[in-house]
Amino acid sequence: MRITEIPTPAVLVDSSRLAANLTRMQSAVSARGMRLRPHAKTHKSPHVARMQIGRGAAGICCAKLGEAEVFADEGITDIRLPYPLHPVNADRVFALADRIALSFIVDDPAVARAWSDRAHGRGRTLDVLVKVDVGFHRCGIDPGLPHAAETLRTISALPGLRFRGLLSHAGHGYGAASELEMEGVAAAEAKLLRDLASASGVTCDEISVGATPTARFSVQQHGITELRPGNYAYFDRTQVGLGAATWNDCALTVLARVVSRPARDRVILDSGSKTLTNDGARGFSALPGYGVVMRDLAAAEPDLSLLIERLSEEHATVRVVEGETTLVTGALARIVPNHSCVVSNLVDQVWLVDGEQVVERMAVAARGRIT
Amino acid sequence: MRITEIPTPAVLVDSSRLAANLTRMQSAVSARGMRLRPHAKTHKSPHVARMQIGRGAAGICCAKLGEAEVFADEGITDIRLPYPLHPVNADRVFALADRIALSFIVDDPAVARAWSDRAHGRGRTLDVLVKVDVGFHRCGIDPGLPHAAETLRTISALPGLRFRGLLSHAGHGYGAASELEMEGVAAAEAKLLRDLASASGVTCDEISVGATPTARFSVQQHGITELRPGNYAYFDRTQVGLGAATWNDCALTVLARVVSRPARDRVILDSGSKTLTNDGARGFSALPGYGVVMRDLAAAEPDLSLLIERLSEEHATVRVVEGETTLVTGALARIVPNHSCVVSNLVDQVWLVDGEQVVERMAVAARGRIT
Repeated sequence: MRITEIPTPAVLVDSSRLAANLTRMQSAVSARGMRLRPHAKTHKSPHVARMQIGRGAAGICCAKLGEAEVFADEGITDIRLPYPLHPVNADRVFALADRIALSFIVDDPAVARAWSDRAHGRGRTLDVLVKVDVGFHRCGIDPGLPHAAETLRTISALPGLRFRGLLSHAGHGYGAASELEMEGVAAAEAKLLRDLASASGVTCDEISVGATPTARFSVQQHGITELRPGNYAYFDRTQVGLGAATWNDCALTVLARVVSRPARDRVILDSGSKTLTNDGARGFSALPGYGVVMRDLAAAEPDLSLLIERLSEEHATVRVVEGETTLVTGALARIVPNHSCVVSNLVDQVWLVDGEQVVERMAVAARGRIT
Repeated sequence: MRITEIPTPAVLVDSSRLAANLTRMQSAVSARGMRLRPHAKTHKSPHVARMQIGRGAAGICCAKLGEAEVFADEGITDIRLPYPLHPVNADRVFALADRIALSFIVDDPAVARAWSDRAHGRGRTLDVLVKVDVGFHRCGIDPGLPHAAETLRTISALPGLRFRGLLSHAGHGYGAASELEMEGVAAAEAKLLRDLASASGVTCDEISVGATPTARFSVQQHGITELRPGNYAYFDRTQVGLGAATWNDCALTVLARVVSRPARDRVILDSGSKTLTNDGARGFSALPGYGVVMRDLAAAEPDLSLLIERLSEEHATVRVVEGETTLVTGALARIVPNHSCVVSNLVDQVWLVDGEQVVERMAVAARGRIT
């Protein structure tokens, strides 16, 4: 079966590009003696997780307990949640920790104490890492505060918790304006973590960092033990814009059909924000539009004469910014989205393809597991 | 059970607000002798569709065939697709038309001819409306072109098609800067449709318009036979910003929990773009942020001291822009999202609630039916 027979719109994942992406990242991380623990948020698929572990990954990451429960059901035995779990979820956490090697983050001594009390009371031990805010300013303890080292000592000494080390996410790398700036983000992150570990005097068996755009620089940093990129499995327009991938690495594309050609300079596709999302693209230079229409169904290079100007929920309004287009009503197009993680989260299954050949359907088993 | 016992994040729909919204719109439309045919894209729920039909709606609209198939399975017998279906889907269209009263739009004589050929060849008749572009510049024939009336005559005369009339969507109303401008959009839409119908000399049994923000003005226009609003069932921050609703009308909220308080002016909630989406808000004035945190769990008024500044996939980063906040780690918050339609599309079920009491769970049965 060829992709031209797939009902549209559809999310396609190229199995050759996927396999190559997984192998390349694993090799780069292993070559430095670090561990790779991919974040599964991008694919939410046990099949892809097994491909990652088969290549040497130490385990996976999930954002939410519900995702981890799906992967545990599918036989994944080592899952880290780089997410500040709240003790309201204690029953689910202990039940999951009965089945797999589970670890998660804390960034608040009070919450850590609550977890400690619950674990201690049950005669259990929970593996935790302390989240450090290295500049993204989301969660994490601020390493610049005078009591940061003390917080680390306090948490690491709590009974019922097995302190594993430090964990960070350099999400601000997505705002870098150049390769040099991206490298600086990765270097500064590693230094902050090393310095905090050293200042605290606490043994950190793990120093874990994660983000696809900084990964290529994080592998060169001293002291890092683990990388947790997620998006690298599929990549997307943002990663191309940030120098982390080429168009030929983009494994996830959206297959769409032209359903209207109301004007010479306007093409309407059947993929709207309920397929592509309104997530914008990041990059070293500004990237307007809601994804990139590729030149042909081989999806090897973008067609820069087309701009996905606006998304309605079920329509993409594409402007022909230059010349003519072959996209007549009924024609198919492949789109590299701005952000692949949120796209796979919208569908119950993706189509595994190899070039223009369909291989099989793959369930996005952990889709929508938000709690 | 109270909403405080629901695992977070969760999508809540207040059944009293929902019922009131449905009744109010039905009354306003019926009072003018027009028909209401709500767009089901907002709720994707057969239960809500039955509430709408029970109040007098003529049927429903769906965007995609897959959605219509779900509603047909659930006993909805009259469905219109204000969407330019492509003949590649002919088998599904004829199968669905065997079961229910089905109609859809065309905006291209060549596509209309293809549908005509298929219907005629099968000895069938398909109900179609011609989509008119009244200023949103998405799909639709341009009524300003000299051959617009001729296009209408051509399509209406095709064998195998039963021409029902004209249909438009004033999506550009979402960009209106004032009540007066919104009223102007609705008035101009109605006039364009009346004039085109008149110029063509073709009998138009139906003149159908649809969009929640213009609905209050469309009911006052001469010649309109049908309104197709969707969002009015749940409303959202954009509709409040456009004067179509009050905060007390907003039936859909996202229940979220504080999972981190890393700084005095920063609150991290467990609802990110995979719950709220990165859709921005529209309004007569600029509305920054990705939804509004409500003052308390009664969700009656917004807490303007909080700004949802950034969404990650599973985190909302909320800035305390003024004073202190009671949102300590573990606390719950209700958020009115910028755009409710895309939020309900992210979950398999919503929680029907009445104030702070849980009523029951409701399946979002047509979620993700994108083809």
